[in-house]
Amino acid sequence: MRTIDWVAGPSGAAGHIRLVDQTQLPERTTALDIETVDELIGAIRRLSIRGAPALGVAGALGVALATGRLSDENARAAAARLRAARPTAVNLALGVDRTLQAFDVGGADGALRAALQLRDEEVAASVAMSTRGADLVRELTGRDQLTVMTICNTGALASVEHGTALGVIEKLHQDGQLRRAVVLETRPLLQGARLTAWELDRMGADYQLIVDSAAATVLAGGDIDAVLVGADRIAANGDTANKIGTFSLAIAADYSSVPFLVVAPETTVDQATATGGDIEIEDRGADEVCVFAGVRTAPAGAAARNPAFDVTPATLITAIVTDQRVISPIRVP
Amino acid sequence: MRTIDWVAGPSGAAGHIRLVDQTQLPERTTALDIETVDELIGAIRRLSIRGAPALGVAGALGVALATGRLSDENARAAAARLRAARPTAVNLALGVDRTLQAFDVGGADGALRAALQLRDEEVAASVAMSTRGADLVRELTGRDQLTVMTICNTGALASVEHGTALGVIEKLHQDGQLRRAVVLETRPLLQGARLTAWELDRMGADYQLIVDSAAATVLAGGDIDAVLVGADRIAANGDTANKIGTFSLAIAADYSSVPFLVVAPETTVDQATATGGDIEIEDRGADEVCVFAGVRTAPAGAAARNPAFDVTPATLITAIVTDQRVISPIRVP
Repeated sequence: MRTIDWVAGPSGAAGHIRLVDQTQLPERTTALDIETVDELIGAIRRLSIRGAPALGVAGALGVALATGRLSDENARAAAARLRAARPTAVNLALGVDRTLQAFDVGGADGALRAALQLRDEEVAASVAMSTRGADLVRELTGRDQLTVMTICNTGALASVEHGTALGVIEKLHQDGQLRRAVVLETRPLLQGARLTAWELDRMGADYQLIVDSAAATVLAGGDIDAVLVGADRIAANGDTANKIGTFSLAIAADYSSVPFLVVAPETTVDQATATGGDIEIEDRGADEVCVFAGVRTAPAGAAARNPAFDVTPATLITAIVTDQRVISPIRVP
Repeated sequence: MRTIDWVAGPSGAAGHIRLVDQTQLPERTTALDIETVDELIGAIRRLSIRGAPALGVAGALGVALATGRLSDENARAAAARLRAARPTAVNLALGVDRTLQAFDVGGADGALRAALQLRDEEVAASVAMSTRGADLVRELTGRDQLTVMTICNTGALASVEHGTALGVIEKLHQDGQLRRAVVLETRPLLQGARLTAWELDRMGADYQLIVDSAAATVLAGGDIDAVLVGADRIAANGDTANKIGTFSLAIAADYSSVPFLVVAPETTVDQATATGGDIEIEDRGADEVCVFAGVRTAPAGAAARNPAFDVTPATLITAIVTDQRVISPIRVP
């Protein structure tokens, strides 16, 4: 099952979006059938679907859904709401924009064709990134048995299939070259513990979970060959916005001279954003920090800051791997 | 109420230990009455009492409890078990050893007197550290309105009263010079969110919780004047074992040129340990990482590494503040 896909309607009827509800993992694998853009926006906001590439496809399929069912005016209004559902990942806006352009030219059918093409391109991009990334890790380390570290979830669940950084790890595993993946649990929402561990488990790969703050000491221990992370937006100068904790991890990798690789589709590189300082960082509010699994972990009324992303300066990134190229060396560790 | 104290028995009867059960905070403030060393070991293992200075007092009072109630042989066996209840904090072993020495000289009465003296010395040391630490923060920063960052709990709950790093923050607050404390939640057991936030709340201080991995980006934001942490063991060369995440925080503070201060009683400096590499690090097992508040956060059977502490090299520490001296500058940021 793909993370997100289009389900064609019976002859003559409109199709709809189906996605894996990631808020239910690892306990349950549940499909959500999405019939309206507002349902899709709800799913995006509560992170039933997340990950930059998957959000791009969600944006595209959302516009296809809207243009197939609504008046021109209402469809455009729905697309604008969808585009703003999350501010940091560039792919969501790109997926919406590209599908709206196809709608302008070819109507609802054109929008659907463009959305399905974007979906297929994301799958192809995952395959290209995984192969190129695995080659680069082998080349940088000179090793063929690798222990790698990763944060958040950048696998099939974040894309359509395979993934970005976790796609590379899956490729190493398929090649018989993955000794172990060390996975940061990724507070506050634990995408590493809930989603990446679940994907590695299904792959049959050896993995070990750690709390985020243990990464520095594990890196200093000397048995990590490379750190692999995804990206939500890459500025023109290489500064990279990704899940909160990525910057901390990059500083620790630099301190211990471990290669730090960003893996993301070319669509995540945003030439319109000059530097990381220009990237808007979403604050998701205090509850994700102060309440866990329905249990308060802080005194009632505790104040919290909850940036969902941080920006890693290009100077801390060894290389950026996209489906089209390796941007390297930014820094040789 | 003190975190840990001795409750004298009615005339002729033996006394016992009373401590605040920190596993119940911030929900409930519950006192535990401890009548045997094995009850005390249980309380230490499940972290009902924790924090290096408090563990020192627990070790001392535990020996007083044992020698007051058991045969010489049984008391010594109980003391040996207590000494090994947690391996990383030097204070627990020191508290046990010192009280056993007093027992050798003065019997059970001597042991109790020595234990109560250690308790009183810890309170006095907290006051000395808090004053000296606050002076040093003002001196290093040249500011009189301060935003400071801290990890774990190093307050009254970790000591008997006041605390170490959080004692300094309390002093700044009492002096009207604390703008805000930024508190790392401190996974896996959330002592920052549960205990430090609770103490700051009771003080009436302004504070803000963050997930541990957000510290680097908050530090890079430029509004943190100093990072203040405690210590579980300081090696002779200044390398410091403390709560997991401290090393990561020190690297991030160094990256952003923010002063990084360790605050700990002189008893935490262990001249018998040459460097950080000689410090045994306790691994507390997978469950603390994979299960939260009774809810599994990772797939069943997930492997985890759970080092409870890490070692920050002296080269990343601006100064170590004890109740007797400032060891500085180790590094000028």
